[in-house]
Amino acid sequence: MQGSRETPSRSAVYPATDRTVPTRAAHKASYDKDVVHSILDEGYVCHLGFVRDGAPVVLPTLYTRVGDRLYVHGSTGSRPLRMAGKADPGLAVCLTVTHVDGLVLARSAFHHSINYRSVVVHGTAHDVTDPDEKRLALDALVDQVVPGRSRDSRPANAKEFAATAVLRLGLDEVSAKLRTGGVGDEPEDLALPHWAGVVPLRKGYEPPVADPDLAPGTALPGYLAAL
Amino acid sequence: MQGSRETPSRSAVYPATDRTVPTRAAHKASYDKDVVHSILDEGYVCHLGFVRDGAPVVLPTLYTRVGDRLYVHGSTGSRPLRMAGKADPGLAVCLTVTHVDGLVLARSAFHHSINYRSVVVHGTAHDVTDPDEKRLALDALVDQVVPGRSRDSRPANAKEFAATAVLRLGLDEVSAKLRTGGVGDEPEDLALPHWAGVVPLRKGYEPPVADPDLAPGTALPGYLAAL
Repeated sequence: MQGSRETPSRSAVYPATDRTVPTRAAHKASYDKDVVHSILDEGYVCHLGFVRDGAPVVLPTLYTRVGDRLYVHGSTGSRPLRMAGKADPGLAVCLTVTHVDGLVLARSAFHHSINYRSVVVHGTAHDVTDPDEKRLALDALVDQVVPGRSRDSRPANAKEFAATAVLRLGLDEVSAKLRTGGVGDEPEDLALPHWAGVVPLRKGYEPPVADPDLAPGTALPGYLAAL
Repeated sequence: MQGSRETPSRSAVYPATDRTVPTRAAHKASYDKDVVHSILDEGYVCHLGFVRDGAPVVLPTLYTRVGDRLYVHGSTGSRPLRMAGKADPGLAVCLTVTHVDGLVLARSAFHHSINYRSVVVHGTAHDVTDPDEKRLALDALVDQVVPGRSRDSRPANAKEFAATAVLRLGLDEVSAKLRTGGVGDEPEDLALPHWAGVVPLRKGYEPPVADPDLAPGTALPGYLAAL
């Protein structure tokens, strides 16, 4: 495990900044790299925020993590990718990943909540111009959704490669926020006749549905059967 | 169904604006109110974007729809709610809701995709100061997560009511974006030996886990058994 001079924790931490310290519920925040990475690695859809003409824009998009870098991609014609490509020194973004784990139903309406794990990344996104880094990011984007899939698909040809833009975002100003556990009702509400508890979300995938034009003899690969 | 002078469609549509017409994949966009409402009504967690000190911020939060209005809530101490309360004439926001329906695994890396349905709302959020509207919004926020739940919980008392801020966002500048269906590979790739198809996401909830301090004789309510 990585060490840190500042903290005795078993893993390194991201520095807390004015933007990553919440104004409330600070006990739910975490800057632990292992916690942040595990939340990011469990997902593949993020919500990417940027500012256009002074107003916020939030779009869902795929992402991947490679070490201390995140990558998102899209058509070279899409707005954030064009903006980041043109912008110097890059495009200010906020990239957020959220997993909803369960519904917390308290006896009081006020203490209703959601069990969740989220990561918020603040930073500047840069257009990836190095072809090797771009190719690595494109493979990682496919593997983030289904590990092992990039090796079992046709890589982008020159035209597809040129039509795709990739943005890099460093994991520098990052925090996680987590709510776990049960109901947090007030002691005086415990005797109320309302059902209280947690409804966990069901996770996972239904059985894969093969394309009708599958080449004859193409079996379901192991990495999909294991999903 | 609602009518519209401008369009012959069976339901009303939101007007397309510069912000809601995508620069690409315009065929995936929808301005149909029924489509937008059904996507919003299926969820309860949104990603709310706003601008702070010139930089974007994207936070996950609960939302509800009441007619042509969305509501979000939070502590009166949280940043966006404080900013909207102070700001005049309100806080510019972008509120995005995304459902991921399946993984689309093409033979080519380039045509990998996600089946999804998303709604993006641009507008100005206003602090709800009318107590009746606020109370209605708080009930709706609970019922958005579990329909029928607000009637089976203790309503907010005066202190809790005062500690909660509610923001209103009109559904005026809104669009949906959808990707459904199967794999979109190039004809020349169909004979490749890679498995291709769609992996649908499993939806729903695990059995509810009751709070250990449940009042004796409190049965699981029907609206939870039906989830």
